[in-house]
Amino acid sequence: MGKGVGTLYGVSVGTGDPELITIKGQRLLQEVWVIAFPLGVNQKQGLAEKIIAPWITPNQKKLPLYFPYVQDEQQLKQAWKEAAEIVWEYLNRGIDVAFACEGDVSFYSTFTYLAQTLKQDHPQVIIQRIPGVCSPMSAASVLGIPLTLGSQNLAILPALYNVTELDQALSWADVIVLLKVSSVYPQVWKKLESLNLLDHAFIVERATQPEEKIYRNLRHHPNLGLSYFSVMIIPLQDRKL
Amino acid sequence: MGKGVGTLYGVSVGTGDPELITIKGQRLLQEVWVIAFPLGVNQKQGLAEKIIAPWITPNQKKLPLYFPYVQDEQQLKQAWKEAAEIVWEYLNRGIDVAFACEGDVSFYSTFTYLAQTLKQDHPQVIIQRIPGVCSPMSAASVLGIPLTLGSQNLAILPALYNVTELDQALSWADVIVLLKVSSVYPQVWKKLESLNLLDHAFIVERATQPEEKIYRNLRHHPNLGLSYFSVMIIPLQDRKL
Repeated sequence: MGKGVGTLYGVSVGTGDPELITIKGQRLLQEVWVIAFPLGVNQKQGLAEKIIAPWITPNQKKLPLYFPYVQDEQQLKQAWKEAAEIVWEYLNRGIDVAFACEGDVSFYSTFTYLAQTLKQDHPQVIIQRIPGVCSPMSAASVLGIPLTLGSQNLAILPALYNVTELDQALSWADVIVLLKVSSVYPQVWKKLESLNLLDHAFIVERATQPEEKIYRNLRHHPNLGLSYFSVMIIPLQDRKL
Repeated sequence: MGKGVGTLYGVSVGTGDPELITIKGQRLLQEVWVIAFPLGVNQKQGLAEKIIAPWITPNQKKLPLYFPYVQDEQQLKQAWKEAAEIVWEYLNRGIDVAFACEGDVSFYSTFTYLAQTLKQDHPQVIIQRIPGVCSPMSAASVLGIPLTLGSQNLAILPALYNVTELDQALSWADVIVLLKVSSVYPQVWKKLESLNLLDHAFIVERATQPEEKIYRNLRHHPNLGLSYFSVMIIPLQDRKL
């Protein structure tokens, strides 16, 4: 090609409904030849790949990248390095790459690790991020509620490991959002019960996806087997306006 | 018409770049005849109206709605009631209306007051919300940084009235976002200076708009005259991953 390095576009593709990608995101997916995305669990089609299916063509080069679902830092770093090298092969030949990213590219996204690794190993890399619809916004929309209003403070906790962190948020915020709540759900439920907050708490699983599930009034749901893509919204009482 | 009431679509139009509307939002703006939006300050064209200009046609009915920029609750309620009646005239005749809403429709949005007033005065109203790009996501994208990563807790404060609220957030969050920070900026700056947080704090004014301004490293900016549409992002040190 001989026109310098290509650009890596981090394209936010939203939460499930393919129509919730932005015009800009869709345009970039259609302008580049190489489309990267995270490989799903057990080699299955991942969410980002499903979302972009209607917007790309069989002639485009698909680049599934492996990001293991583990905690081990060495294993993670090795995977980021390998993914970065696969993408860099194209960028280095002047070929643009779009990385399709579930939700928003800046909001708890795998894209950040890919971008940071590339930047570190190849400082000349050019990266552009296209913002998109994140899961708390999708969840509020399908519930038909405001997420936040007026001067309400919002706390977002992405992965609750103990209920102490929730206590701190409860003492400070007007609205609390918990992501990936499944592992500590019974403890969270008991805490909200003791504070009489269950009646106005919501959970949305897989918002805007075909398998979307909505739970209103959690009093009747002390036990829920929740998927990875679940958003819990807890409006506290006496909400400031 | 004679087909019951129309649907009110709350269409999130994003933060400035017209291409940051979703495919779904754009489609709905083009499918309905009546397009409502908030009238700008001093009767000028508002942001939502600017954003949707490329997507609508002169044949569509424009419905600028007046939402005063005041604190007085009576005055606000009166304005919401009047706006709701203007919209209801169409809905009641079976005509769909799309309300174009800056940022995301569930995130500190005027749309909520319109929707709540309509629901109260006309319980049979049908409302659908289309999520979109909110300002913290746009700001992080144009900065080229992650807003949040891994297990980082996020605090969003929409309108800081005193620094005590910031203290509470500082004791608890990993990343803090302040919206509409202009009136208390000097106090916030002093507080961040005392905690040695200025070097890694950012401000984006009018993210993704033609007048976008980015401030990195706030140590050099003890005084800034900031616009209404400003987002401050404060990553705290020793960020959890």
